[in-house]
Amino acid sequence: MKKSIVVSIQPTKFSALAFKEDFEESIKKVADLGFDGAELAVRNPKDLKVDDVIEIIKENNLEVPAIGTGQAYGEEGLSFSDPDEAIRKMAVKRINNQIIFASHFNAQVIIGLIRGNVEESVGRAEAEEWTIDCLRECTEFAKEYNIRLTLEPVNRYESNFINTLNEGIQFIKRVGASNLGLLADTFHMNIEEVSIYDSIIQAKDYITHVHFADSNRWAPGCGHIDFKKVIETLKKIDYQGYISAEILPLPDPNSCARLTIEHLNKIKF
Amino acid sequence: MKKSIVVSIQPTKFSALAFKEDFEESIKKVADLGFDGAELAVRNPKDLKVDDVIEIIKENNLEVPAIGTGQAYGEEGLSFSDPDEAIRKMAVKRINNQIIFASHFNAQVIIGLIRGNVEESVGRAEAEEWTIDCLRECTEFAKEYNIRLTLEPVNRYESNFINTLNEGIQFIKRVGASNLGLLADTFHMNIEEVSIYDSIIQAKDYITHVHFADSNRWAPGCGHIDFKKVIETLKKIDYQGYISAEILPLPDPNSCARLTIEHLNKIKF
Repeated sequence: MKKSIVVSIQPTKFSALAFKEDFEESIKKVADLGFDGAELAVRNPKDLKVDDVIEIIKENNLEVPAIGTGQAYGEEGLSFSDPDEAIRKMAVKRINNQIIFASHFNAQVIIGLIRGNVEESVGRAEAEEWTIDCLRECTEFAKEYNIRLTLEPVNRYESNFINTLNEGIQFIKRVGASNLGLLADTFHMNIEEVSIYDSIIQAKDYITHVHFADSNRWAPGCGHIDFKKVIETLKKIDYQGYISAEILPLPDPNSCARLTIEHLNKIKF
Repeated sequence: MKKSIVVSIQPTKFSALAFKEDFEESIKKVADLGFDGAELAVRNPKDLKVDDVIEIIKENNLEVPAIGTGQAYGEEGLSFSDPDEAIRKMAVKRINNQIIFASHFNAQVIIGLIRGNVEESVGRAEAEEWTIDCLRECTEFAKEYNIRLTLEPVNRYESNFINTLNEGIQFIKRVGASNLGLLADTFHMNIEEVSIYDSIIQAKDYITHVHFADSNRWAPGCGHIDFKKVIETLKKIDYQGYISAEILPLPDPNSCARLTIEHLNKIKF
């Protein structure tokens, strides 16, 4: 297993991201601390100087395991489950642009908050169908670029559907695309899973990416999740991918990155 | 320690309450299952036939350890931190009515969601001062009825202030009223506390009421909170009050109450 941490490329309202400002400086710090990769949180790849991003990542000998896409929902309201077809189309287009961006790094594209919420005015079945249609369209597009998407269950307060790993798996089965995996995030799992460990075991054929945040969304070691046991469980299922810290920038962005690597270094991988 | 479960007196939109319908039937079930008390969730005591409530409780030999008041925020928007003074006054009046209602049972009055949220348009310090002023007014009023209020820290998604037991304690100190205690809720603590057990120990001089819900807000035993260890910790601080189940009515209202008592009966009190 390799280690990464989320870095936001542009200023964002979403606070669960370390290193908000100054991308190059942040990437250097991530490399200096000994991370293997940087997960990039991107609102819209069209706003980026992609060649610069590629160069900065390369200069620092980092990988990009995944691209976070939730800002397009949080800041622009784009989602796969919006009753307005035009908005769903914009969300698909945005994810397709993220797929092209991700292809420069062979990164997975995360489908987290971008799925949206089942709004009160629409039926759950209908909203799920819209989401599945969007996921099918994006996974088809991603195949052309040999890119995987990874579906992230999030806790009930952030979305009212796909909250547990098992719900994620049911969705993945319904989409039926070979390039759609599952993202296990410990912060969300602490709220939603009956057992974090049993759920990981049961999802062993689906997990393609892992987010680490402690129970209070601070760096691992700052709450009460037993990361040693989580890592042991991931080893049991022979997980070979990245452990990526998606945490609040607390007590400050530098400290949270340092605390993450210090805590992970204490654990035998 | 005695055991109770939340019963909502009137239909409510807030779903974290067992037994929504048919108050009398619900109270009988609570008594039949072996609970010592029923915590009552009340939007507005003025809508109740108070004598009927008193009689039903008495007939079933139950106590009422606490009155939940959050529905007035969820359904009417009344809060202690609203920038509109008229709304704050309505919130204080509502709580004072709850205090009068509570005095029939010697119940504590819970200050949970009714504190509201620090709105973006106002400063945090100002919203906190408004909340403290309201708490002072209500605790003064409660003294006339020999009633205690209990302040409930809730997780970050339900309010943006007073999330941890320690934040609750700081608020209680600032209010400076001898009849204001602290409510420890395991569901919220699982998200907010670095250690559920250490936080209980540190709050030992303040805790006057306890809510039990598992990590997923189902009945105790349905998630991953170690209630045996929580109860051992409460015994360490010599907690003599109620353990009250405030849980989602899942898989259904009857089952969640039964699951609660079954799980608690397995633990040595």
